[in-house]
Amino acid sequence: MKKHKLPKGFLVSGIHCGVKKKRKDLSLLYSKTPCKVEALFTRNAVKAAPLLVAEEQLKKGGCFSAVLINSGNANCMTGDRGLSDARKMAAVLARLLGTSKDAVLVSSTGIIGKFMPMRPIINGMFKLVAGLSADGLIDAAEGIMTTDRFHKIASRTFVAGGKKITMTGIAKGAGMVKPDMATMLCYILTDANVSKKAMKKALLAAAETSFNAITVDGDMSTNDTAMLLANGEADNRLIKENGKDLELFQKNLGEVSGELARMIVRDGEGASKFIEVCVKGARTVPDAKKMAGAVADSLLVKCAVLGGDPNWGRIASSAGASGVAFDPGKMEVILDGVTFYKSGRFKPVSARKAASVFKGKDVQIKVDLHGGEAEACVFSCDISKKYITLNAHYTT
Amino acid sequence: MKKHKLPKGFLVSGIHCGVKKKRKDLSLLYSKTPCKVEALFTRNAVKAAPLLVAEEQLKKGGCFSAVLINSGNANCMTGDRGLSDARKMAAVLARLLGTSKDAVLVSSTGIIGKFMPMRPIINGMFKLVAGLSADGLIDAAEGIMTTDRFHKIASRTFVAGGKKITMTGIAKGAGMVKPDMATMLCYILTDANVSKKAMKKALLAAAETSFNAITVDGDMSTNDTAMLLANGEADNRLIKENGKDLELFQKNLGEVSGELARMIVRDGEGASKFIEVCVKGARTVPDAKKMAGAVADSLLVKCAVLGGDPNWGRIASSAGASGVAFDPGKMEVILDGVTFYKSGRFKPVSARKAASVFKGKDVQIKVDLHGGEAEACVFSCDISKKYITLNAHYTT
Repeated sequence: MKKHKLPKGFLVSGIHCGVKKKRKDLSLLYSKTPCKVEALFTRNAVKAAPLLVAEEQLKKGGCFSAVLINSGNANCMTGDRGLSDARKMAAVLARLLGTSKDAVLVSSTGIIGKFMPMRPIINGMFKLVAGLSADGLIDAAEGIMTTDRFHKIASRTFVAGGKKITMTGIAKGAGMVKPDMATMLCYILTDANVSKKAMKKALLAAAETSFNAITVDGDMSTNDTAMLLANGEADNRLIKENGKDLELFQKNLGEVSGELARMIVRDGEGASKFIEVCVKGARTVPDAKKMAGAVADSLLVKCAVLGGDPNWGRIASSAGASGVAFDPGKMEVILDGVTFYKSGRFKPVSARKAASVFKGKDVQIKVDLHGGEAEACVFSCDISKKYITLNAHYTT
Repeated sequence: MKKHKLPKGFLVSGIHCGVKKKRKDLSLLYSKTPCKVEALFTRNAVKAAPLLVAEEQLKKGGCFSAVLINSGNANCMTGDRGLSDARKMAAVLARLLGTSKDAVLVSSTGIIGKFMPMRPIINGMFKLVAGLSADGLIDAAEGIMTTDRFHKIASRTFVAGGKKITMTGIAKGAGMVKPDMATMLCYILTDANVSKKAMKKALLAAAETSFNAITVDGDMSTNDTAMLLANGEADNRLIKENGKDLELFQKNLGEVSGELARMIVRDGEGASKFIEVCVKGARTVPDAKKMAGAVADSLLVKCAVLGGDPNWGRIASSAGASGVAFDPGKMEVILDGVTFYKSGRFKPVSARKAASVFKGKDVQIKVDLHGGEAEACVFSCDISKKYITLNAHYTT
């Protein structure tokens, strides 16, 4: 397994404090040098308390020293008390860290509609701060997990603005993400010296082909968060909103985000296969993405992949139902490299060839509309009986 | 069981001809007096051959004597050969019935992407025509079934324009309809004397709260069809596009359609519970319907209902993710009559009361946004492991 390192100046920790019964449930990301922060939050009309508080803080501007994240309770639909709990979490931690409460951001994930158990969190903070370390990455990645089966870390180093820059992210997902509305949390830390505008531009671009290519259509949970923190300790020439340095920064951010997003899909509840749906030859990228999303979301397609059944008719039908206008007579459907349908007619595929499709751990669905130059991919996973079991009896 | 009668002048039949191994697979609806016909077809960009042919025929205008429907093969994505097969089916049947080929409509449902087995269909037609009867309703309803567990018939009689009018419909569904893209076919026969404009108006209105309240968002199969045939044999005063008679006609058409639509949901593949999702207090009906559809489609909500788990947080979250703008602080969530969330805070519900929720065969989810006067309901069913089994190994 690759050993991931934290960027310069960051210390992190993760502990069990008691929101959950046994597993780690509280993480801290800290930088001695205050960070510029850019964040993307859920577009859900129902937003959890910590998101509302963080949006306020980010709007004010300024720099941030720490992010506190708990799992086990989402602090969502908790009204005024939820807001004051989130603010209190930030204030208490700020006192321990010796910073302003405005410099601490808070995130939460877990059950909706229960008040935050404040006592274990407050009591746990001392241990959490004492445990801050440059080696705490796995602990921190574990502290944000809910039903995740494995922790998710990705990192890159690259040279930009004359210095070596490190970029390291942790994430949590689980659930089938879109239908599940499982919370997706992601924090990417970097020591790059980078302008706010460049951060925003890079984060939006990276999310488009990673986190937004797995959640699709803005159908997000109440707590979804993707955050980029930059403390500038690499001491490179400032990366501005244009130019070669930004390209490099953006490329690496895209890779880290993409890796984390794919890990989230692979860890989908009860998932056994990873599905890549690519739509080519569309008129526009939004068209391609909309159609890829419709195919990736189709329960029937997920079932077909689970059963190892190359049911191209279902795939064509879900593409047709996506609301994207196209000429079905030009459509091509290719499953794991085998063309099943082309130019308005299905192609004879030998039984041996057909039997090889959808049998691996990673499967690929390609739809070529032959109607333009645009393309987009969406990542998904199959559905299994285990998913039903997990979600029929998840404790409220 | 209610005994349903055919409207005056209609004869129907249903047989096994050999498209499927054993079950009935060919139905005929016939009227001696040619009928006015209004139809709604799938909005899927991929349309099956018989739909393309029928659209052409209906555009030309004129009256129709018969509808031939086969199950077992959808004649979809079959290119030019599919179109000529559909036309041939109409032409051969027209010869047997002694009418013009333009007076025969054809529908198909079943597997996508296989050529229609023409021989059993052509060979079966003689028996099908010979079997036409005023008592053939159940046979005809069975001939259009695919994975349906029971046939679906609904009827009404009422007095309008001074005469007794009968209206009788058959339908097939199965699958979870929206995610499944299972074909929904519905044919409603009436002896009313009614103008084309009135038929269109009434059919659109009826579909909005029935078939379109179960398929949601235009996400339809390649073959979906709802057809209204009127032969005028009741000899009533013409029902025009306005007035009391139309109201009556529309009300009864709405009831027949609603009954059939609810039967389709109850017969969802592997479904064990019927879910009614109603959104009240929305700003517009489309808003209410969009949100109700999002909640009804949520896999997590379906799983919660299956598990008898009153997970109101998931419901609020899927409502919030629907894309409808509303004030979460005013939202109310009521499950089977028990309020769990109101005015920005969750209400304490006794364990005994909570345990009673989602336990029956029919469950109700109500979301009141307290933001307007509009409301809409969507009908859905839960998801079970059986659904996964059925669809993972459906033969292509």
